[in-house]
Amino acid sequence: MDAISIIRDKRDKRALTDDQIDWIIDAYTRGTVADEQMSALAMAILLNGMTRQEIARWTAAMIASGERLDITGALADPAAAPRPTADKHSTGGVGDKITLPLAPLVAACGATVPQLSGRGLGHTGGTLDKLESIPGWRARLSNAEMLDVLRSAGCVICAAGDGLAPADRKLYALRDVTGTVESIPLIASSIMSKKIAEGTGSLVLDVKVGTGAFMKTVEDARELATTMVGLGTDHGVRTVALLTEMSTPLGLTAGNALEVRESLEVLAGGGPADVVELTLALAREMLDAAGLEDADPAKALADGSAMDAWRRMITAQGGDPDAPLPASRAQHIVTAPTTGVLSRLDAYDIGVAAWRLGAGRARKEDPVQAAAGIELHAKPGDTVTKGAPLMTLHTDTPERFDYATEALTTSYDIAPHGTEVRVGPIVRERIA
Amino acid sequence: MDAISIIRDKRDKRALTDDQIDWIIDAYTRGTVADEQMSALAMAILLNGMTRQEIARWTAAMIASGERLDITGALADPAAAPRPTADKHSTGGVGDKITLPLAPLVAACGATVPQLSGRGLGHTGGTLDKLESIPGWRARLSNAEMLDVLRSAGCVICAAGDGLAPADRKLYALRDVTGTVESIPLIASSIMSKKIAEGTGSLVLDVKVGTGAFMKTVEDARELATTMVGLGTDHGVRTVALLTEMSTPLGLTAGNALEVRESLEVLAGGGPADVVELTLALAREMLDAAGLEDADPAKALADGSAMDAWRRMITAQGGDPDAPLPASRAQHIVTAPTTGVLSRLDAYDIGVAAWRLGAGRARKEDPVQAAAGIELHAKPGDTVTKGAPLMTLHTDTPERFDYATEALTTSYDIAPHGTEVRVGPIVRERIA
Repeated sequence: MDAISIIRDKRDKRALTDDQIDWIIDAYTRGTVADEQMSALAMAILLNGMTRQEIARWTAAMIASGERLDITGALADPAAAPRPTADKHSTGGVGDKITLPLAPLVAACGATVPQLSGRGLGHTGGTLDKLESIPGWRARLSNAEMLDVLRSAGCVICAAGDGLAPADRKLYALRDVTGTVESIPLIASSIMSKKIAEGTGSLVLDVKVGTGAFMKTVEDARELATTMVGLGTDHGVRTVALLTEMSTPLGLTAGNALEVRESLEVLAGGGPADVVELTLALAREMLDAAGLEDADPAKALADGSAMDAWRRMITAQGGDPDAPLPASRAQHIVTAPTTGVLSRLDAYDIGVAAWRLGAGRARKEDPVQAAAGIELHAKPGDTVTKGAPLMTLHTDTPERFDYATEALTTSYDIAPHGTEVRVGPIVRERIA
Repeated sequence: MDAISIIRDKRDKRALTDDQIDWIIDAYTRGTVADEQMSALAMAILLNGMTRQEIARWTAAMIASGERLDITGALADPAAAPRPTADKHSTGGVGDKITLPLAPLVAACGATVPQLSGRGLGHTGGTLDKLESIPGWRARLSNAEMLDVLRSAGCVICAAGDGLAPADRKLYALRDVTGTVESIPLIASSIMSKKIAEGTGSLVLDVKVGTGAFMKTVEDARELATTMVGLGTDHGVRTVALLTEMSTPLGLTAGNALEVRESLEVLAGGGPADVVELTLALAREMLDAAGLEDADPAKALADGSAMDAWRRMITAQGGDPDAPLPASRAQHIVTAPTTGVLSRLDAYDIGVAAWRLGAGRARKEDPVQAAAGIELHAKPGDTVTKGAPLMTLHTDTPERFDYATEALTTSYDIAPHGTEVRVGPIVRERIA
């Protein structure tokens, strides 16, 4: 078995055998297959694809490269009824702060929610980056600390430990710098290997589709969702996917502290309608998958029990839920050039502008600005008036305003009054 | 300009711009583009191809990555008529020792022959490895030493200096370990960048086709030849390509010292008919391209003047042309299992067996055995008798006989007496 013959097989459109996949994932994890060999293979996989059997084995091999957690088992209390575990994963979008209100909401409804999350890459935001704008809050927990937070709050949002699917950790960093991110087999196996290794009992996938998502078309999003649901099911994880809209930013904020603030509005029973709608839709799916069909997430938002779970979780992870969030040092207001109705607001452009303001990072090792980002004052369908604020840009580095506004020039359209603007549902399809 | 966007463009089937190609070749040579990025790009080029304009620019950028020689200018003697320079390149085959008799033969006919050569890779032999079986002979010469050998012998066969197309040197080593060798744009630009940087006035390409060659089909060989002739012509090098047969080994030997011995037979006026035929065909093309249409290479073989040039060249490079060649420590004879007529002898299988006996290397840093290889006692069309020797295997490591004979089990067919075996011409096509 050698790397070159495996690369050649995939290059020449042959399916890899189970043995070949096991060998190369193991050898790559141990460092005997070099990065330049794995990146050539990743490009061949991106261009020539993988069969369902290859994707399943690739995922299994990445799971086998590290430890497996058993959160349900570790938390089992012989004196109490077992709490089912529920998890969700989003493929990433703009203004997608849903994990923040969702995890405590589902915990308040009776499930255990171990939410291992990531950081932003490119124009998409990262859950851990957002929560780090809360003074004192820690993303990195040991396995023991993670279990303690779950016991006290019912939910945890933290970084995945180094022991979980190390092959994926290495391959993900490699794909990011070699133009091999946008491969459905590689995206599906990357997401699912971590989720399966984490040991959740059920999983809801939020597969974004649209300009601000990695999947630009419904066909690609559907293929990715179907692949992941198949992988989860094959590994005994009850898995459901929702295809959700990501051509327009979610809610009215994109940025780190700005999105925490908006999440708190939702947990307080308010917040933008689209964020509440998607949070409740995902909560119902997670509760159903966890066998808690009778729970009422809307009530848990209204009665404050979701907010209570949030405060317990933030506190248990070292954060102060009452500390003021960081505010930006400089603001710039973009005004509407004409009067009419906002007919389009592009998620990708808004994401790029927020990223350029400092909300995201250009290289993995860069820090992010907690206060940077964009507040939206109108969404598609809203009336706008010439000269009135359309959005407010926030940054600690005002020299970036020009670079950010450059990305915004084609980010929206204003149609004449009376034009009908159709705003579709957030959830476009459900795949189980 | 950044590596990831260039990789993505090629991945998504867009042609790279001149600026993108210049940038990435320069950045890769200087080490700011990483090996794992270049290998992903190489795989995307292999699978998605390059336009003629891209190949031309890629070649020019690799030439510009290092120094350019001007052999004709450096050797110019105001007191004498200028000697034209002529060079040839073979894409590599089994038993392909043609460079050894050819360079001194063309020098004896009045051209200057600077033959920068390579080492064997995989199942194909390397000219430098073969000549190193001559005691004392040195492959690595400084530019000044190379010119001295050319002045005294009219020809030189040596390793290319480190200053010549360093981008190609780095990329070639990378392609070898990442399954990205078999790309016509990358092969063509690799060969031609070195030949153009070397500064030859004319070039004859021996493009092998068949099981023992990198190009298995005439169509692929023709495309490679046409691409290289176009590149040479565009850079002012008179370039001609011959497509030549490589489904059967050339001559009756494959191995290092074994092929030197056979080359000496040709220089002495004898040798196998196919080796003599191809040597003369390439010599005539080189002499025509150099403007020496009246030279008579057959005469130079018959009258000993080619042998004289060989002896001068070997001596000038530190070798002893009269020293005995190394002999193998162990031999094994493969006999014919039936009586009949040899109808097929596979070049690839013979090349793999010779390689396994020690004539080639598994990794670049491995040494080769001078005496290892295979002597053939019959070629297609010859009558064979049950129990009589078909081939003799040579090695210094007899424990490899089993591994080598394994590669030979399907290497030949014997047909009943009277079966007509068609042996095609060595030269299949000429592309100018």
